Amino acid sequence: MDSTFRRTPDIHLQDLIDGLLNGNRVFLSKAITLVESKRSDDRKLSAELIDRVIDSNEDSLRIGITGVPGVGKSTFIESFGKMLTSLGKKVAVLSVDPSSNRTKGSILGDKTRMDELSRDPNAFIRPSASGSSLGGVAHSTRETILLCEAAGFDVIIIETVGVGQSETVVKDMVDYFLLLMLAGGGDELQGIKRGIMEMADHILINKADKDNLKAAKQAKEDYKNAVHLFPPNEAEWVVPVGLCSALEKTGIKESWEEIEKYVSKTRSNGWFSENRKRQALKWFHERIHARLEDDFYSKPEIKEEIKKREKLISSQKISVRKAVDELFN
Amino acid sequence: MDSTFRRTPDIHLQDLIDGLLNGNRVFLSKAITLVESKRSDDRKLSAELIDRVIDSNEDSLRIGITGVPGVGKSTFIESFGKMLTSLGKKVAVLSVDPSSNRTKGSILGDKTRMDELSRDPNAFIRPSASGSSLGGVAHSTRETILLCEAAGFDVIIIETVGVGQSETVVKDMVDYFLLLMLAGGGDELQGIKRGIMEMADHILINKADKDNLKAAKQAKEDYKNAVHLFPPNEAEWVVPVGLCSALEKTGIKESWEEIEKYVSKTRSNGWFSENRKRQALKWFHERIHARLEDDFYSKPEIKEEIKKREKLISSQKISVRKAVDELFN
Repeated sequence: MDSTFRRTPDIHLQDLIDGLLNGNRVFLSKAITLVESKRSDDRKLSAELIDRVIDSNEDSLRIGITGVPGVGKSTFIESFGKMLTSLGKKVAVLSVDPSSNRTKGSILGDKTRMDELSRDPNAFIRPSASGSSLGGVAHSTRETILLCEAAGFDVIIIETVGVGQSETVVKDMVDYFLLLMLAGGGDELQGIKRGIMEMADHILINKADKDNLKAAKQAKEDYKNAVHLFPPNEAEWVVPVGLCSALEKTGIKESWEEIEKYVSKTRSNGWFSENRKRQALKWFHERIHARLEDDFYSKPEIKEEIKKREKLISSQKISVRKAVDELFN
Repeated sequence: MDSTFRRTPDIHLQDLIDGLLNGNRVFLSKAITLVESKRSDDRKLSAELIDRVIDSNEDSLRIGITGVPGVGKSTFIESFGKMLTSLGKKVAVLSVDPSSNRTKGSILGDKTRMDELSRDPNAFIRPSASGSSLGGVAHSTRETILLCEAAGFDVIIIETVGVGQSETVVKDMVDYFLLLMLAGGGDELQGIKRGIMEMADHILINKADKDNLKAAKQAKEDYKNAVHLFPPNEAEWVVPVGLCSALEKTGIKESWEEIEKYVSKTRSNGWFSENRKRQALKWFHERIHARLEDDFYSKPEIKEEIKKREKLISSQKISVRKAVDELFN
């Protein structure tokens, strides 16, 4: 990021905050880059920055979107985002992709994927934070959500590419979790990990168009039946199963109407804010754990000792208890 | 436990190990009590003990069994266990119940629940370890599994009462995870937590007898269809859906035949031992994390600081980043 922010932090931090709260997207981008930075002087500034905009998210809505590669996430988000901006909403699109080594330059990649939306003055598209650990990426993304909300964005879409545990991580930072699926069942679902279906607040079968329509309708019935076998979720929400075609722009508006029902229901039964509180406290303890682990695992002598013991454990030469005891003594 | 083990540890530890390896259940009980102990001198002995019997589990099978209260777990385990001992197997039954404050005396409770099995010379029933944290209970249970295997038990059944995250914890310590369900769907399933169904290696609908039989058969078809919508599991195992009546002892033998198929398949495709290795390494890192957290959270000054910050975070007065920074500075 612009190094002048570092040189005279106090003045520039105030400018940054003012610009951010005014919805200036250049300042928003700079603020995100700041919180993603790992430099220790940037860290202090970031804490200050986040701390001063933390309470500006009352009316925002955070939506997680997942689905296997090929399900049409980008096309869906483009249609869905355009529909939202046409309703006067300001929409931010973030992604959680721990496998990605993309840096600033690759914004272009995401902008190309969502061509129309990226040119929309009421939309903001930001590629995933780069980072070696999912926990680190998740942390940056959570802070980026707060910054987008401070900049006046109403709907924050967090897309996950479904690598590793990224769905669980995204589930923990959103108000609503939407799963995009394809018709057909069986082979097509290979990419969806177990447990994801039951995490969803919404199942949407994409590409329900042309020759696919019949299969999509059948899939809808199948998933509806399956959803009824699932235990109810904590929000007391019956998971809707819908059809859409991101390409033909059908079913997009209808899915938003379902989301609005959810928001209205959970705002009145208290789950909406209860869930955000729980998520924030969980995040707090996750960061404490991450800090403890970082401090421990980053010691070079510890790394070696752990590797040695992993080998012994794998071949049943040493018990876990003894290995841990030795490590801490 | 018998305090003489503490007084002259070296001699008595050898006796304990000999007795254990000979399958003497009095020594097995004493060994379990030792590994459950939190006294620091017992801890050292435990590490030594576990370390010396760690490699005696080659042919054992660890089965997790879960289901909502009322599904008939005890009756099922009794019938299932008796069937196994009639085949010449030695069967141990453990349970993971973090909510329980049961101590030694309550063995009676479990023995009453499984009256016939408890009197079977080839069965061993042990109540859950008491403990304040699920992680602690899980750790004791894992070590108890190792001790039972050292004492020559072929099949180790770990029952979970489904409190908190106990299913996930049990899933991580067993070779096979069996979910008991009831017919009917909907209301009856309220107690099953989301995500559990997709964790199962086997779905068994219990109480498929008398007036219930028709509903059970319908439920079987429904779950079979639902299971086909799930992504395949890592063991490349198609989850069987079966019927049983623990009371009328039907479907018990058939479920064991399915389990045998699983064992034979995963032993030949390598998943069985791969899974155990993964579980052991995960356990190792879990214990490292637990130790780091214990050391940190047990400091009284830290406890207070955390509470203060939790309040501020809940009311959005402070950011997570700042709260963590303050805590570590």
